[in-house]
Amino acid sequence: MRFIVQKFGGTSVATPELRERVAGKIIAAKEEGYTPVVVVSAIGRAGDPYATDTLINFARQAHRDLSAREMDLLMSCGEIISGVVMAAVLQKAGHPAVFLTGAQAGIITDGSYNEARILKVKPENILKQAKEGKIVIVAGFQGVTEDGEITTLGRGGSDTTAAALGVALNAAYVDIYTDVEGIMTADPRIVDGAQALEKVTYDEICQLAHEGAKVVHPRAVEIVMQRNIPLRVRSTFSDTPGTLVTSSGEVYRGTIDITRDRTITGITQIPNLVQFKVATEETGTEGLTRQRRLFKSLALSGISLDFINVYPDEVVFTVKEDVWQKAAQILENAGFKAGVTPDCAKVAAVGAGMTGVPGVMAAIVEALTRENIQILQANDSYTTIWVLVKREDMEKAVRALHRQFMES
Amino acid sequence: MRFIVQKFGGTSVATPELRERVAGKIIAAKEEGYTPVVVVSAIGRAGDPYATDTLINFARQAHRDLSAREMDLLMSCGEIISGVVMAAVLQKAGHPAVFLTGAQAGIITDGSYNEARILKVKPENILKQAKEGKIVIVAGFQGVTEDGEITTLGRGGSDTTAAALGVALNAAYVDIYTDVEGIMTADPRIVDGAQALEKVTYDEICQLAHEGAKVVHPRAVEIVMQRNIPLRVRSTFSDTPGTLVTSSGEVYRGTIDITRDRTITGITQIPNLVQFKVATEETGTEGLTRQRRLFKSLALSGISLDFINVYPDEVVFTVKEDVWQKAAQILENAGFKAGVTPDCAKVAAVGAGMTGVPGVMAAIVEALTRENIQILQANDSYTTIWVLVKREDMEKAVRALHRQFMES
Repeated sequence: MRFIVQKFGGTSVATPELRERVAGKIIAAKEEGYTPVVVVSAIGRAGDPYATDTLINFARQAHRDLSAREMDLLMSCGEIISGVVMAAVLQKAGHPAVFLTGAQAGIITDGSYNEARILKVKPENILKQAKEGKIVIVAGFQGVTEDGEITTLGRGGSDTTAAALGVALNAAYVDIYTDVEGIMTADPRIVDGAQALEKVTYDEICQLAHEGAKVVHPRAVEIVMQRNIPLRVRSTFSDTPGTLVTSSGEVYRGTIDITRDRTITGITQIPNLVQFKVATEETGTEGLTRQRRLFKSLALSGISLDFINVYPDEVVFTVKEDVWQKAAQILENAGFKAGVTPDCAKVAAVGAGMTGVPGVMAAIVEALTRENIQILQANDSYTTIWVLVKREDMEKAVRALHRQFMES
Repeated sequence: MRFIVQKFGGTSVATPELRERVAGKIIAAKEEGYTPVVVVSAIGRAGDPYATDTLINFARQAHRDLSAREMDLLMSCGEIISGVVMAAVLQKAGHPAVFLTGAQAGIITDGSYNEARILKVKPENILKQAKEGKIVIVAGFQGVTEDGEITTLGRGGSDTTAAALGVALNAAYVDIYTDVEGIMTADPRIVDGAQALEKVTYDEICQLAHEGAKVVHPRAVEIVMQRNIPLRVRSTFSDTPGTLVTSSGEVYRGTIDITRDRTITGITQIPNLVQFKVATEETGTEGLTRQRRLFKSLALSGISLDFINVYPDEVVFTVKEDVWQKAAQILENAGFKAGVTPDCAKVAAVGAGMTGVPGVMAAIVEALTRENIQILQANDSYTTIWVLVKREDMEKAVRALHRQFMES
């Protein structure tokens, strides 16, 4: 059997019409000779009665601090309801279909409720059902411990389920269906000319995801990457081929060497950041001690820092907007004076192709200053250049960088 | 540990206020020194998003003939959602509470989806949680096969769960909480003077349930009866003691011998019946052959008959209204001529105390004819007398019999 794992997100199964469309994608894969194994997320978004957020809110109305174990049991129902309804649609279309919970599908996790990690997959039940000619539908986002406790995998968990199944079944493809055309060169809501990339590497998609592109969960990419299972990001709403995610060797060996002259893969953005500039005043040993104390006090509070630049007498970093007041309080309690710039956004140009290419940062600065965008901070790694700008400049900056690198 | 099993039906947990009230009943049992094990049904009735009927309708909109296995998976979510929310309410009140699915609670069933039978209970997990001082909440109405397939127990299944747990834990009581005061002498919506019975026997409650009194599922009674676990039917909405259901020995040994002079335990009714009178024309061997053919053809179609009277040249019986046209068609195809009386109702006087008491049937006929109620058919067994009347006379007949036997 040549397996194909097809994962459909919550918006893809939100209405009867969409579920018909999803069934069409599944049946098409079957008719192409694949044995489809389908992973579904809970139906819709907050507001739909069976969406994950709706279930969470329902329990929180009873008790804000419901135990994580019970919350996972509750959330697991979202994918059960969604998967059973997809089985119904396929059965109605005349295709034998069976639905398996995460536990029944052999998704074994550790016991970290709300953000469990898949330890292994026991695919025997899936294989048995598939051998009987059934389309197997598996609940995404959930698993079970060896002790029989139901767990959920955290946000993006259905992608992780699909990836783990792809590896366990040695699938020809793991197809992640979503509401966009594939991995885009930029957010199409910001950039009119944003396009789906034909191919990207595992590394590039991980970078894009970490930098705010809402595509595939990085953990899912890490899983398929280990066994070199090709992953495709495709649209439920069209028949375009989507983006193939594969190892860099595959991409470079492709008939069209798209990455050779592709410096930048995509432009991403993360809004709602607050920049801190903390004077550590002293330099030398005394300054280092103060800096160590600064990082330690913030780390103990669980606040994660980003965009960190360390100078002899100053530390600059950003935090997410929802924790900035907590961070400011901690710094004050620890005796630090901080300059705070609210309403910032991070814009990133991501691309493995920029490694060793001179002048990328220069081109970025050039493109932004031409548009009178103030650069608050800039960092680079060998695959990414980040620029911190004011929130009000974010869209303009994304468009400027897209024009500079993607539309030439 | 002295366990008490407390079962709360869907209407008892339908709103936040009711769930607070239910929590109060549970905490009260704990404070009386019991170890409560709570069984919950799905929240509310059709219309509530997480009610069993709502979930069924949701799947049926996709496919009317969804497979029974998948329907059970879907329905199992109703009790999971309900049970998690009850755990939330108890946790908020400061009581450690844990929720277990049927599978986690060790409710092992056969594989008859939609109407599975409990084969055994493995109470280890419940015992472990209870020993840790936790209030254990168990999903009613569901179980798991030895192969890990999720099953449901059919309507009334939460009562069965509670009864099976009561036996497995050797509980002091199995308390079935509902929206009435206990086992009533008649339906209080029909008879103003209907009252809760203080004590009834297992036999009496089974008879009442079979004759249409919506109280406790007979299967649940059969289970507790085998191990002589006392069962109480109580109201979620009041603090009255409810009805104690126990073996006849217990009732007769009671300080007040309530059953000695209680000929009739209660009056029940079942509406929506259709009466058939089928002439088998021939008598003797030929007639018997035709009668056998009549019963066989109806039995093969899965239609259940009630109120059967067999005469040498005629067979009289009733069927439920929703299958009467199917029954008529089958009889016609088999060459029988049937007289059909639509819109009938069965009224029953139930009571183990009528055994050996002369004149009960005479008193019933007297009470009904005094009210000009036409008796279409009447049968009796040693604990029950049934009368078939026109649907329009049903309420009047119930009131007449209640006055005759229960208000004297």
